[in-house]
Amino acid sequence: MSVTFDYKNAMSFMKKTEMENLSQFVKQAHHQIHTHQGPGSDYLGWVEWPIQYDKDEFERLKSAAKKIQEQSDALIVIGIGGSYLGAKAAIEALSHTFHNQMEGTTEVYFAGQNISSTYIEHLLQVLEGKDISINVISKSGTTTEPALAFRIFREFMEKKYGVEETRNRIYVTTDKTEGALRNLATEEGFETFVIPENIGGRYSVLTPVGLLPIAVAGLDIDAMMAGAASAYHQYNNPDMTTNGCYQYAAVRNIFNNKGKSIELLVAYEPSLRYVAEWWKQLFGESEGKDSKGLFPASVNFTTDLHSIGQYVQEGRRLFIETAIQIKKSSVERTIQADENNMDGLNFLSGKTMDEVNKKAALGTTLAHIDGGVPNLLIELDELNEYTFGELVYFFEKACAISATLLGVNPFDQPGVEAYKINMFALLGKEGFEEERNQLEDRLEKISGE
Amino acid sequence: MSVTFDYKNAMSFMKKTEMENLSQFVKQAHHQIHTHQGPGSDYLGWVEWPIQYDKDEFERLKSAAKKIQEQSDALIVIGIGGSYLGAKAAIEALSHTFHNQMEGTTEVYFAGQNISSTYIEHLLQVLEGKDISINVISKSGTTTEPALAFRIFREFMEKKYGVEETRNRIYVTTDKTEGALRNLATEEGFETFVIPENIGGRYSVLTPVGLLPIAVAGLDIDAMMAGAASAYHQYNNPDMTTNGCYQYAAVRNIFNNKGKSIELLVAYEPSLRYVAEWWKQLFGESEGKDSKGLFPASVNFTTDLHSIGQYVQEGRRLFIETAIQIKKSSVERTIQADENNMDGLNFLSGKTMDEVNKKAALGTTLAHIDGGVPNLLIELDELNEYTFGELVYFFEKACAISATLLGVNPFDQPGVEAYKINMFALLGKEGFEEERNQLEDRLEKISGE
Repeated sequence: MSVTFDYKNAMSFMKKTEMENLSQFVKQAHHQIHTHQGPGSDYLGWVEWPIQYDKDEFERLKSAAKKIQEQSDALIVIGIGGSYLGAKAAIEALSHTFHNQMEGTTEVYFAGQNISSTYIEHLLQVLEGKDISINVISKSGTTTEPALAFRIFREFMEKKYGVEETRNRIYVTTDKTEGALRNLATEEGFETFVIPENIGGRYSVLTPVGLLPIAVAGLDIDAMMAGAASAYHQYNNPDMTTNGCYQYAAVRNIFNNKGKSIELLVAYEPSLRYVAEWWKQLFGESEGKDSKGLFPASVNFTTDLHSIGQYVQEGRRLFIETAIQIKKSSVERTIQADENNMDGLNFLSGKTMDEVNKKAALGTTLAHIDGGVPNLLIELDELNEYTFGELVYFFEKACAISATLLGVNPFDQPGVEAYKINMFALLGKEGFEEERNQLEDRLEKISGE
Repeated sequence: MSVTFDYKNAMSFMKKTEMENLSQFVKQAHHQIHTHQGPGSDYLGWVEWPIQYDKDEFERLKSAAKKIQEQSDALIVIGIGGSYLGAKAAIEALSHTFHNQMEGTTEVYFAGQNISSTYIEHLLQVLEGKDISINVISKSGTTTEPALAFRIFREFMEKKYGVEETRNRIYVTTDKTEGALRNLATEEGFETFVIPENIGGRYSVLTPVGLLPIAVAGLDIDAMMAGAASAYHQYNNPDMTTNGCYQYAAVRNIFNNKGKSIELLVAYEPSLRYVAEWWKQLFGESEGKDSKGLFPASVNFTTDLHSIGQYVQEGRRLFIETAIQIKKSSVERTIQADENNMDGLNFLSGKTMDEVNKKAALGTTLAHIDGGVPNLLIELDELNEYTFGELVYFFEKACAISATLLGVNPFDQPGVEAYKINMFALLGKEGFEEERNQLEDRLEKISGE
């Protein structure tokens, strides 16, 4: 086991019997998920995915990644939500901190994750003079943000390369048979990869959705899938006493029921920032419905100990805190003694920076316990492709169990449509005339008040 | 006025009389702040700063920035908390999205804001072959994170440039007379800038703390100070009915009292991400004490509408939402018609992307009101140095009034010490022996349970 869960630093805020009392429900939730039943059961494809994914498609994906690396200086990944955050999380966590500035790599940029004209203009500028390929990722092909970006980049490339060569540089990840993007890909002859129909966006990082960009960035996706497969086996056990993944789900449920309202995901490595963003989507979108759920927030320590650390220590007692800790840093640096010691830090000389970072983490945990914040700990032996795959599966399964215990459908996201309907209405899209009239009346009323 | 505040989209959740009832207390808080009284009154130097800052030091700072631009390819800014977030926020908001990759700029990197050995190693790698200068920012010079980074960079530079030339490339921003860093600077003859003693870290972005890196990045700090001075005059009025800054403070107080627990700062431009991080420190550190305060969280829309948007729409009703909106985008891009219209987006052709972004924002506001989230709006005419300065002052003053209404000291941060004491004890620092023994007993107990 290279990912472990530990809740001993929450035990002063709860009783052992609370866990025991939950174990039967966890078993039931496990059974429901493994027999593909319950609300949202059409989206349980992720459960067995790490041991059942299509190996031929996987090899073809690796070849495509190699082809992109050879044909281009940079890959533009066009996607939003689950078609964006998984790859972004993996690449930030596992690549060089300044990946796009280092020699000998294929740069990876993201587009279609916002509607900022400044962002896309600046992106086009930084790409000037570079050879590029595109991976456009969308189940339907009609989601506004990525579809707009795709229009812009296709036009940009057709001007630069001509229609024929552009075709050779566009890679599409979409539905197997249906939708605008599938149809376009068929018509134009783009190389395509399939978004499995039984895996939702926030569960899709280990499918071609995440894997193609991750492989282009030079990461080892074989190891990533092996890590996920290992997690499949580790957490395939209904008995909560030996299943850390289910313990995490249960502890979240306990503190939710005690009235905590925020779970703070804490990382001590800045490269994990987008792992936290990915985690926020996973848990926020799965649980945040029917007026329920812990609100998922995140911080980078020790950085943010000097910003919202004060609030976490002494503000409203809203939190549980879950820290991700890497046992063995991939880089070691020993602190040197300084002749004058004017900063008073010579007591650290001979220690490694990572040792200091770890003591800061432990010191923080103890301080926050004193401040009334139950602390959970997820430890990775190292940070690499294997443990990343394992961690992803750990969170995915914990989330499904946790949301099931909460009594919601873990796999839908009905609330995401609300702003889109208003947006389409306000933009005058056909079929939204009635909504438009209603909104305009409403806006007039608001500004008249 | 190029920054305005509007709370009409919160009015369905509150009464006009609630504002009226608060106005006398806002007046009182205004009086307290402007006469430099009340808790933390030693740290009210920021109030008159935009109209009283030292113009000679300001000119010297601009010369130093020019010198750095001439002598180096890159500036490394070493600082944490308030000595980091302000400059980072300004540079991200106002520079090119890919600033460090663009030709003809002085690159700006940050260090000393974490204890990650991976981060600092990667930073040293990306700097290979570049000429660098350092701006180390610390009131005391003994804060662990920046002091460690400074040791590493000084050694790195002395190897690269020799002792003499290194001296010429180190710029120190620190206390006027006291502290380890001041003493070292005097001894070594580094060029120094002063952190005003009556301005706390989170209020320091418009002092040399923020201004030197901001100027090196090529931004117009004259305009920034002019914007802040304009805000000083605009918000120098105790009457809440005509003071948007105080209205924001009052509305926050009202919803805090109604039981809301999170304020979500929303931006529709990705470049504002670190403005939100800066804002989190400002409000979190000022208000998060005595078990009080709205928890400051942030999102980038429309990006995050596809991740935690679901939670905001339908999860627990914890929120108020404050959107920052830029009226006139600095970049315009018109959406082109597509012959085949397979993505169905031709109804947008002829519109600008920014128009779509604005309608997404309005659609989101209306959807979130329907979801029970009171919506506040801060509008900037444009995003530039002037409005940035204005916005900073708007938030600073609103925060002071809001924290005063909440009944806390807006200018201390007693909780930040807690983790440091534990960390020093665990690392065996002299003088912390007793704490160390206590912690070790406690850790033994926890792991024995």
